[in-house]
Amino acid sequence: MLIDLRSDTVTRPSPGMRRAMYEAEVGDDVFGEDPTVRRLEARVAELLGKEAALFVPSGVMGNQLAIKVLTRPGDEVLLGRESHIFNYESGAPALISGVQLHPLDDTPGWFTPEALALAVRHGHDWEPRSRLVCLENTHNRAGGVVIPPDVVEAVTAEARRHGLALHLDGARLWHASVALGVPEHRLAAPFDTVSVCLSKGLGAPVGSVLAASADLIAEARRFRKLLGGGMRQVGVLAAAGLYALEHHRPLLAEDHAKARRLAEGIAELPAFEIDLERVQTNIVRFDVRRGTAESVLAQLRDEGVLMVAFGPRTIRATTHRDVSMQDIDRALAILHRLFGRPSA
Amino acid sequence: MLIDLRSDTVTRPSPGMRRAMYEAEVGDDVFGEDPTVRRLEARVAELLGKEAALFVPSGVMGNQLAIKVLTRPGDEVLLGRESHIFNYESGAPALISGVQLHPLDDTPGWFTPEALALAVRHGHDWEPRSRLVCLENTHNRAGGVVIPPDVVEAVTAEARRHGLALHLDGARLWHASVALGVPEHRLAAPFDTVSVCLSKGLGAPVGSVLAASADLIAEARRFRKLLGGGMRQVGVLAAAGLYALEHHRPLLAEDHAKARRLAEGIAELPAFEIDLERVQTNIVRFDVRRGTAESVLAQLRDEGVLMVAFGPRTIRATTHRDVSMQDIDRALAILHRLFGRPSA
Amino acid sequence: MLIDLRSDTVTRPSPGMRRAMYEAEVGDDVFGEDPTVRRLEARVAELLGKEAALFVPSGVMGNQLAIKVLTRPGDEVLLGRESHIFNYESGAPALISGVQLHPLDDTPGWFTPEALALAVRHGHDWEPRSRLVCLENTHNRAGGVVIPPDVVEAVTAEARRHGLALHLDGARLWHASVALGVPEHRLAAPFDTVSVCLSKGLGAPVGSVLAASADLIAEARRFRKLLGGGMRQVGVLAAAGLYALEHHRPLLAEDHAKARRLAEGIAELPAFEIDLERVQTNIVRFDVRRGTAESVLAQLRDEGVLMVAFGPRTIRATTHRDVSMQDIDRALAILHRLFGRPSA
Amino acid sequence: MLIDLRSDTVTRPSPGMRRAMYEAEVGDDVFGEDPTVRRLEARVAELLGKEAALFVPSGVMGNQLAIKVLTRPGDEVLLGRESHIFNYESGAPALISGVQLHPLDDTPGWFTPEALALAVRHGHDWEPRSRLVCLENTHNRAGGVVIPPDVVEAVTAEARRHGLALHLDGARLWHASVALGVPEHRLAAPFDTVSVCLSKGLGAPVGSVLAASADLIAEARRFRKLLGGGMRQVGVLAAAGLYALEHHRPLLAEDHAKARRLAEGIAELPAFEIDLERVQTNIVRFDVRRGTAESVLAQLRDEGVLMVAFGPRTIRATTHRDVSMQDIDRALAILHRLFGRPSA
Repeated sequence: MLIDLRSDTVTRPSPGMRRAMYEAEVGDDVFGEDPTVRRLEARVAELLGKEAALFVPSGVMGNQLAIKVLTRPGDEVLLGRESHIFNYESGAPALISGVQLHPLDDTPGWFTPEALALAVRHGHDWEPRSRLVCLENTHNRAGGVVIPPDVVEAVTAEARRHGLALHLDGARLWHASVALGVPEHRLAAPFDTVSVCLSKGLGAPVGSVLAASADLIAEARRFRKLLGGGMRQVGVLAAAGLYALEHHRPLLAEDHAKARRLAEGIAELPAFEIDLERVQTNIVRFDVRRGTAESVLAQLRDEGVLMVAFGPRTIRATTHRDVSMQDIDRALAILHRLFGRPSA
Repeated sequence: MLIDLRSDTVTRPSPGMRRAMYEAEVGDDVFGEDPTVRRLEARVAELLGKEAALFVPSGVMGNQLAIKVLTRPGDEVLLGRESHIFNYESGAPALISGVQLHPLDDTPGWFTPEALALAVRHGHDWEPRSRLVCLENTHNRAGGVVIPPDVVEAVTAEARRHGLALHLDGARLWHASVALGVPEHRLAAPFDTVSVCLSKGLGAPVGSVLAASADLIAEARRFRKLLGGGMRQVGVLAAAGLYALEHHRPLLAEDHAKARRLAEGIAELPAFEIDLERVQTNIVRFDVRRGTAESVLAQLRDEGVLMVAFGPRTIRATTHRDVSMQDIDRALAILHRLFGRPSA
Repeated sequence: MLIDLRSDTVTRPSPGMRRAMYEAEVGDDVFGEDPTVRRLEARVAELLGKEAALFVPSGVMGNQLAIKVLTRPGDEVLLGRESHIFNYESGAPALISGVQLHPLDDTPGWFTPEALALAVRHGHDWEPRSRLVCLENTHNRAGGVVIPPDVVEAVTAEARRHGLALHLDGARLWHASVALGVPEHRLAAPFDTVSVCLSKGLGAPVGSVLAASADLIAEARRFRKLLGGGMRQVGVLAAAGLYALEHHRPLLAEDHAKARRLAEGIAELPAFEIDLERVQTNIVRFDVRRGTAESVLAQLRDEGVLMVAFGPRTIRATTHRDVSMQDIDRALAILHRLFGRPSA
Repeated sequence: MLIDLRSDTVTRPSPGMRRAMYEAEVGDDVFGEDPTVRRLEARVAELLGKEAALFVPSGVMGNQLAIKVLTRPGDEVLLGRESHIFNYESGAPALISGVQLHPLDDTPGWFTPEALALAVRHGHDWEPRSRLVCLENTHNRAGGVVIPPDVVEAVTAEARRHGLALHLDGARLWHASVALGVPEHRLAAPFDTVSVCLSKGLGAPVGSVLAASADLIAEARRFRKLLGGGMRQVGVLAAAGLYALEHHRPLLAEDHAKARRLAEGIAELPAFEIDLERVQTNIVRFDVRRGTAESVLAQLRDEGVLMVAFGPRTIRATTHRDVSMQDIDRALAILHRLFGRPSA
């Protein structure tokens, strides 16, 4: 059997979740008549401490709607160079919102308030108009790290000093909440808009949610329709999301434990370099000391272990519901067999 | 119980369909690994006689992706003034594709080749660049009419003479096929891209499909991701689509019979004006002779019969899987009671 | 010598205008330091009764900036099907502003308040958002006709009832003012933004001006820079504009007299059909009874008379500073020779 | 008298240039009939070794048209973080072309082929599509430095290896040519499109030119019209450009000598820090050791010397035709008086 650590997006719906979908009460959500969608939106709004929420087919759409409703064409968005929005959303902000991205160095998972202040424009006609700051928590490419609460506070305060809007890409905000022991709504509080994913670690097959004020959500709903994200009896998916929040979310700490075990096993291998302090949630990021990430990945693939490259020498493994602690141990055994120091 | 004739989008998944969704084999479709989605895409491509197909969350996204891959910003799209794209897609073509819509009179459900030829631009720098023609079959706002095959042939041939691309909005192409007794792939043949809906008359909860050449579909897949339409284990929805094609599609003629019965009943009422020749599929469009559509709709709503306005004096009723012939008879009884000539 | 009646855009700067350009005091207008540009902008703002004005390189840019500052992507603009913006601005509104154009029948040079009211959308998420109405006065494709003041009042009042913004494409507003004997600021009063051209009938080599409130002009100035319309010592052009306003504008009535003479001469020719009531300013629009506009134009070209086609059987001739009354008489002689009834 | 070193854009037309404008032969350039514009376009195409060229109202429009014709929405453009396009074009690439900018570190005036290779995307649907690389030569924010020819060769070769298009922002390419003693066409050779400015150092009041293949220029001409850059008897400006090329261009070395003198004088002042090796053309960039750039600029302004800030502690002075060597000496005297070491 494959041990698929490429992403937590590969999780498949659990039997209980499938049953919830089977039994879902539905209606036409374009007319606002799907009761299950409404319940899901109300539940996420409550968890994130916002007035309202909107179910969307993907995390990309959640982020893009946030950018759309918080900016105008010609604006500039300040965000991390390693962020999902800059790297993995197909260049959507320029096409959908007509905004320029201004990437700042976020190697640790965030940028500083000082860097933000330096990057903000001065309002001349010949400059893009600084309008929005995006953070990502947990930060995927930085290795699933949690942004320290005092950093969030400092950066968002600096943004507000410049009159900027704030969006949180919280695709894995659930994990940050577990790692910090702080409820999601506290982590979401400084932001105008917050997007969260129900697929990924929570294990729903499809779906993300954008939360914000009622006015912003009404505007986002309009643009969701424009982008083709208005769906009909989509309660069948919302039911999976509700199930995930109730039954899968309490188990996320297990995924963190799996990642920790995997990381510690990798740390024993001199072939790799890993910063254990940065293994805080369900993502394990490590470097290959010799050769390339691709060759390591190919050898692992031959043994049924799947991970992905995050750079020429960098690998990411992600733990999730559909790999067990035993799978992790099997993966470690394979890693040790392939890359362990030869017995002299 | 409500008799909901507002739209065929209100249909709820049938028990067999729910079971198919429950049992669906799934994978991560962003990685191209969902076997059920692949089967659905192959099946629709085959039905429409195209090389490839792409599952999308909505008919809007299907149409918008077609426009995106067939045009460049600054182009012009020739289409019917009464078309869904011009009226009900939130102005998306300008925002997503940067194209100007050039609406032509399509009161009967289509425009003529002569009107098309007159509207095509001459290639001057100061003109928009004519690039794409869109037809809609069946035509919703014209009352679900089928475009006569010789009209399709003449209009598409004229478009090709001017070097224009062709998209078919086939949200209800299934109905045109039934009404004409002609397979869908024959109706789709003259077009570069064809979008069809699995929700609406087919009764799936969510989903549409865009079919085209393999190259265009690869390009559409990229822009689907950009628009936020890339979903993960979406085989749970594709299973419903496959079920709908196999089990619901053969029954569409029943919806046409219900519409016919409803239309003939309405034709007996002097309060209304209806052109029975235009009742060809599952849509019944009629006019109110005195007063407004809104007041008629309100009276019907009080009796549990739901329809929608299509103009100040125009009403649309749509039949579908979730209204029975008995429901139609009940609705007619109510219509006759409310709007019948008083017995002298 | 050619008699060039293709357009009033072919006018060349007069000697006095060239001298004014030669002597122009200039500065860097991107820094707001060109005194001649400032004087021109102040003068046009005063003439049009608006707070502020902005010099732009073309009428297209004036119109497009107006649309940009009065709309947001996803909005819809209601305008005439025969308008310059719909036909001769390269499809710019979709690309620059992400807005959908909604063309209404304006055969006489305008559309009715009733047609406008019917076309306004209802605010559903699936509809474009009605936002802006554009009128064109005088109306080029309708034959340079002046929109009757009561029509302007009725249409703009209806627009306001629906909360819509208003732009006036006044490329030839100077001509409307002359024809009506009403100052430009009265004609401009109902509109949020008004664009006027200094080239065309006024005879400056380059330049148009957008007038509006100070806030809208500040926003337009920013987008002018973004579109590449920010120029440096552009006082050399503004000087021509100021000269045109002072010295050429008082002479526009002569161009109207030339058009009238030309039209009356054409009316004598049975080969052509012309509605003399619609010859109100400097444009003469007439139809060819037999054959095509192109063949008539080719015969005229061989004799040194240039006009343009406005349709398969429709021709436009435009009078301006650089054709004299004698030129008109010469053109008429040629027309009579070529197309007069043969003496039996 | 002010000594205005803010930019070379502040130059005013010389008497000879004004005469050339006064006498310019003109026509309607939207119809392609302005002979002076045609001569200017042919001359610049020849100088840059390209098939064709297009006169545009500004350097911004030249750059934006290049991006427009070389990309499609959803693409990514790799360029310097300190480049004019990223910092001073109002965020136009996102709005006009729907492209994402991907800024690379170009502190010295360029980025390395290695950095470029790392930044190129891999073609996944979820990534922006790498399409275009832009260089700037001379590089304004780096202090007017010339990119070494071997760097240009290495970076452009790397770009071609990845199938990327190449644009050169050559606003001050004339200066690079003078500094290197290499004709412009050799510097322009590796690029698909090259934009150059006639205002700035050459001293024309308005205008830039884009050069490329005939096909690309035809496409750019279309989009110039769309953006509102199509002008009429614009030969009055083109005449200034032709004059500048013939009479001002041979004198650019004088501006370099002025900059050198200014820089060496500044280097004597311990209050400032300057890298004399980077003073290669007409720009002098230096840092303030104590206090802020703004306070230094304010003191200079009070004495009639104008420069601009390029950062909290960084100042730029630009030499040009309208400051003489004597002005430079006067400015240096003021600098020494204000910021010289106190006599002990």
